[in-house]
Amino acid sequence: MPSTTTIKFLQQPTSTAWIEQALANLDMILLDHSHCERKAAGVALNLMFRYPSNTKLVRSLTTIAQEELAHFDQVNQILEERGIPLGPLAAPPYGAGLNKQIRPQEPERLLDSLLVSGLIEARSHERLGLLGEHCPDPQLARFYRSLMASEARHYGIYWVLATTYYDRAIVEHRLQELAPIESELLATLHPQPRIHS
Amino acid sequence: MPSTTTIKFLQQPTSTAWIEQALANLDMILLDHSHCERKAAGVALNLMFRYPSNTKLVRSLTTIAQEELAHFDQVNQILEERGIPLGPLAAPPYGAGLNKQIRPQEPERLLDSLLVSGLIEARSHERLGLLGEHCPDPQLARFYRSLMASEARHYGIYWVLATTYYDRAIVEHRLQELAPIESELLATLHPQPRIHS
Repeated sequence: MPSTTTIKFLQQPTSTAWIEQALANLDMILLDHSHCERKAAGVALNLMFRYPSNTKLVRSLTTIAQEELAHFDQVNQILEERGIPLGPLAAPPYGAGLNKQIRPQEPERLLDSLLVSGLIEARSHERLGLLGEHCPDPQLARFYRSLMASEARHYGIYWVLATTYYDRAIVEHRLQELAPIESELLATLHPQPRIHS
Repeated sequence: MPSTTTIKFLQQPTSTAWIEQALANLDMILLDHSHCERKAAGVALNLMFRYPSNTKLVRSLTTIAQEELAHFDQVNQILEERGIPLGPLAAPPYGAGLNKQIRPQEPERLLDSLLVSGLIEARSHERLGLLGEHCPDPQLARFYRSLMASEARHYGIYWVLATTYYDRAIVEHRLQELAPIESELLATLHPQPRIHS
């Protein structure tokens, strides 16, 4: 059932098991999606805060944060229409597992931060695409498809920023190390339905 | 020279000394303004993160964060046009002094957080208004005036949220305690020119 489209950043495509889990738990996926959008805006803002002199980074991540907040608001609107209350939700191990890969010293820290964000955006793009393709609810399917273009742009921006501040060979080498870890974190389906379960 | 308009939230109007300092250091005020907008977006996002079940708070602060990011991008555009590089800037004591007033336990913590943000927005509204009135550079003066409406809306939103979650008498009482502290923090001009020096 997964789409045959593969995304350059990703080592392994999403499993059929995830799509089945997600389609059987669309309310929880919507709520988690809301958290994902807010977190993505937060990550972009934190990077802008940490690297205030990197003009290109600051300007590009402003756009990303604005788009994530617009999506956050759209998801929250859908939650409201469906009577699903906003609320906290335990995060799956995915984000923490990826953040552990970010080396604490510069210049590695920025490179890893950009690539980890790029990988998360690429995976979100893939999974929202799968929901857009397979979701039986036409309103939701349309919504997921409407997010595809900007999610794709986001991982493109993280890639461009990485290659702005680091040699392309170094970026590609590090991506080759991180991409299998990202796929490995998703190899066993997390029991709680999430965008990144 | 200060405008005669007074803003309900604020105990004391801004001094003439601040306007003189700001007009003599417009480049630094612009750079600090950029930081203020990004910080304001960050504060709104952190509150959304801390109170994920408070739907009205989450939805209202999404709007604020989006507008702050739009202003952030506008200020950064002006900085770029003027050849002022983005970069870090030491914060004046104002923000830390106000944050110290936020009581660490709930339910006081949320009330104080909303009122402190409201006070900062009210002061920003007043000071950007003064710059819009007195700045000799017509492009900048226009820019400052263009921000007034949303800055005023922002402190209105923080006030409405406070009175949504707390009794009006409690909110008014706490504001009466915080507003003199806010004015006191600005009573002595900080030597480094800032929006809140």
